[in-house]
Amino acid sequence: MDELLERLAEIADLERVSMLLAWDQEVFMPPAGAQARGELRATVGRLAHERFTDERIGELLQSASPRDELEVDVVRVAQRDFDKSRRVSGELVAEMARAGVAAREAWLQARENSDFAHLAPYLERNIELRRRYSACFPEAEHPYDPLLDDFEPGLTTSSLREALDRLRDGLVTLVASAPRVDDAVLRGPFPEAGQRALVDTVLRAIGVDDRQWRVDDAPHPFQATIAAQDVRLTTRYSEADLDSLYGSLHELGHGLYEHQVDPALERTPLAGGASSAWHESQSRLWENMVGRSGGFWRWCLPHAQAALPERFAGVTWQEVQRAANAVRPSLIRVSADEVTYGLHIVLRFELEVALIEGDLAVADLPVAWNERTHAYLALDVPDDARGVLQDVHWAEGIFGYFPTYALGNVIAGQVWACVLADLPDLDERFAAGDFAALREWLGEHVHRFGRRYLPTDLLERVTGEGLDPAPYLAYLEAKLDASAQLMS
Amino acid sequence: MDELLERLAEIADLERVSMLLAWDQEVFMPPAGAQARGELRATVGRLAHERFTDERIGELLQSASPRDELEVDVVRVAQRDFDKSRRVSGELVAEMARAGVAAREAWLQARENSDFAHLAPYLERNIELRRRYSACFPEAEHPYDPLLDDFEPGLTTSSLREALDRLRDGLVTLVASAPRVDDAVLRGPFPEAGQRALVDTVLRAIGVDDRQWRVDDAPHPFQATIAAQDVRLTTRYSEADLDSLYGSLHELGHGLYEHQVDPALERTPLAGGASSAWHESQSRLWENMVGRSGGFWRWCLPHAQAALPERFAGVTWQEVQRAANAVRPSLIRVSADEVTYGLHIVLRFELEVALIEGDLAVADLPVAWNERTHAYLALDVPDDARGVLQDVHWAEGIFGYFPTYALGNVIAGQVWACVLADLPDLDERFAAGDFAALREWLGEHVHRFGRRYLPTDLLERVTGEGLDPAPYLAYLEAKLDASAQLMS
Repeated sequence: MDELLERLAEIADLERVSMLLAWDQEVFMPPAGAQARGELRATVGRLAHERFTDERIGELLQSASPRDELEVDVVRVAQRDFDKSRRVSGELVAEMARAGVAAREAWLQARENSDFAHLAPYLERNIELRRRYSACFPEAEHPYDPLLDDFEPGLTTSSLREALDRLRDGLVTLVASAPRVDDAVLRGPFPEAGQRALVDTVLRAIGVDDRQWRVDDAPHPFQATIAAQDVRLTTRYSEADLDSLYGSLHELGHGLYEHQVDPALERTPLAGGASSAWHESQSRLWENMVGRSGGFWRWCLPHAQAALPERFAGVTWQEVQRAANAVRPSLIRVSADEVTYGLHIVLRFELEVALIEGDLAVADLPVAWNERTHAYLALDVPDDARGVLQDVHWAEGIFGYFPTYALGNVIAGQVWACVLADLPDLDERFAAGDFAALREWLGEHVHRFGRRYLPTDLLERVTGEGLDPAPYLAYLEAKLDASAQLMS
Repeated sequence: MDELLERLAEIADLERVSMLLAWDQEVFMPPAGAQARGELRATVGRLAHERFTDERIGELLQSASPRDELEVDVVRVAQRDFDKSRRVSGELVAEMARAGVAAREAWLQARENSDFAHLAPYLERNIELRRRYSACFPEAEHPYDPLLDDFEPGLTTSSLREALDRLRDGLVTLVASAPRVDDAVLRGPFPEAGQRALVDTVLRAIGVDDRQWRVDDAPHPFQATIAAQDVRLTTRYSEADLDSLYGSLHELGHGLYEHQVDPALERTPLAGGASSAWHESQSRLWENMVGRSGGFWRWCLPHAQAALPERFAGVTWQEVQRAANAVRPSLIRVSADEVTYGLHIVLRFELEVALIEGDLAVADLPVAWNERTHAYLALDVPDDARGVLQDVHWAEGIFGYFPTYALGNVIAGQVWACVLADLPDLDERFAAGDFAALREWLGEHVHRFGRRYLPTDLLERVTGEGLDPAPYLAYLEAKLDASAQLMS
């Protein structure tokens, strides 16, 4: 057991090292260092993979005698990861990586020229390879299941589809009836220095300190945990909007999850979040449930007025909150509002499942994309650059990840209902600048467990229920109702 | 051969990763991340060591068929490193590391209380372990040889002693006859913003650009090469002096060496400098030969006046240059001037050789230290904190490293004589802000070879001569003569 733990600790260390290499590359690396950095990352990734798939790990797992509950969980999770990693040949993994790199290049050019045909053969190749990957798990009910399992261990396509169908129907109704809101107060220009001051105030109020956190700029914001006590957020500033604030809250949610994992789990495969959707639930919770709440803006507005007086002087918190919850169907996922965002995701999920099933040919993808955009968002797609070519995921060979964005919202909605049941005065606490109760609730009920439980088991444990989009839809509906009342 | 190169590339990558972990720790890591960082560094270090000392490397080296001169050098250097690493047991290496950590703690306390007796038993343990290390190489002429060889491959204690004896005698004479110079112009306060502007101007003029370099703050300045095209310098600012400028030039010299290694050597054991002394020769060359030259100050003074007008307005370059070359015997090595610095080093070298030989007991070390300080620098040591306890090296178990500081100056002197023979107008070039000719000369004659040659072979190749302190002493003497003439 000790040898197993030691080996797993080493692998966990290598994964943290990979994270630092990636963080540094995005944040501080001189650009000419990129090629050498690729080698460093490949070497560390290969070593971690080699050491994890080593026969010896299999033997140690077989013969392990866990001495406590934690070790039982370590063995179970490591065994699952190990079995999965052994099912796929190194050649297939390498081929998928190579195909993804080639397709990514093609995607850049295709998007630039809005020329889907240029990408199509690469996409076909990616899909073929993903189906071969899927075939490594012949016991799967559905060919999409093994892809999904990489991000949501144990979740099936059928139960996901059921949840997202209900989410889609609810969202389509909400979008159609949403009030048209004037959100000019959240349009810039916002001077960068003021945004920085505001982001700093908000993050510190929630619990970010210099002893255990860093916040830096990066062109594509992300969160990197180097250790539970070395969590790094990145954000970017555009004078045109306050995305720096919402992006920071989003990354903070990811970081807080990793920060509050039980220290006993460090250097085991259990450190980190339960799944992609669980991670996303935490980022969305802070970004949306907190950052777009009335309580938050009652507290935040004076700080926003101090930092950005040009925009916020003479404004009420109700105006800001209403603007922060405006619904405005648009073509581009990454700039979508909270309500329409889920529809962008469901659309992608439905199309990628059909591609993997073989029910949808790559050549027919743009038409299918445009049809659903019209059906869900009532928008016409003027060109593929603003349609099917807008995201890099499929070009990189990533299938099974998109739905976790929507699932994160669903889970956040279920968790949020539990939070409010336990802490009914939460909005008042936010208004007083008190975010500790929420932070601690999440630590106690979600974060500390890390990867100990499968995502659906964790959901059962936290909420007593299975996947259910109803609480999230109810939360959105209540906000839109309030917004409509304020306007009437 | 290909498998060998692939394995050596992997080890080289891990060493670069170690460097990034160390750089990040000093420069950007939140302090609470220190413990976890220790684990990451230990894991990467252990992996690199394990993979290098693997039997398979030995087999591949045995059967290697190099296909060109570069591969011949790779095999030779790797074989030497491999043989050396296999001679010392892992237990002894671990024991030395543990003893060093314990002794370092003791040293902090001993220095605080100026209480040498508290450190003495730890020091005895370090010396005993170093002698055991040395005994792993029974063919060595002198027990200090294997320690020295870790930093200066192939150099013997006897030839080093001969060179440093001559250096010492020459320096003692120079110090005794050096003019007393008013160096007030280089004493602060210098506002930090002005220092930053000046350092930036100087580094950019020499060739530092944002595409391939970074410059950051760190409490203990150092240079870290993550790749030849990702070189990172650090510096620190004190308002009391211009050490930020000289420290930056010093680290630049280290960085330029690594930056200009032949790209074909990347990811082989040949990337990097030939030895500690060679590295130090490059840092000292830029810090002293360049940074204290008349030409440099003729060019730099207007920039210094623009950045730090409070101090430099109305000052002549001759005054600054004279101050930059002031000789002033003092007790503390790290703040010593260029001339007395060598005597601080020779004193340490002589004492550490005697400790390893067993000719000097640890208990007698403070008295021996104080006697030599008086003999070489004509100073009385008031307490051990300002004497034998001032440096951490021996507490960390580092023996054989100190002399490379002095040897670096000796080599710099020999190289400098060759530079001036090839580029007689160098001082005029500096005065015109042209540092490219020197940079290129060093790249062509020294840097590009990396670790291909043993340090003494490289010296022979560059200068046609063996170790010789005469050029360095002549260089110092010429500066002091010029300084004395200016004053008379």
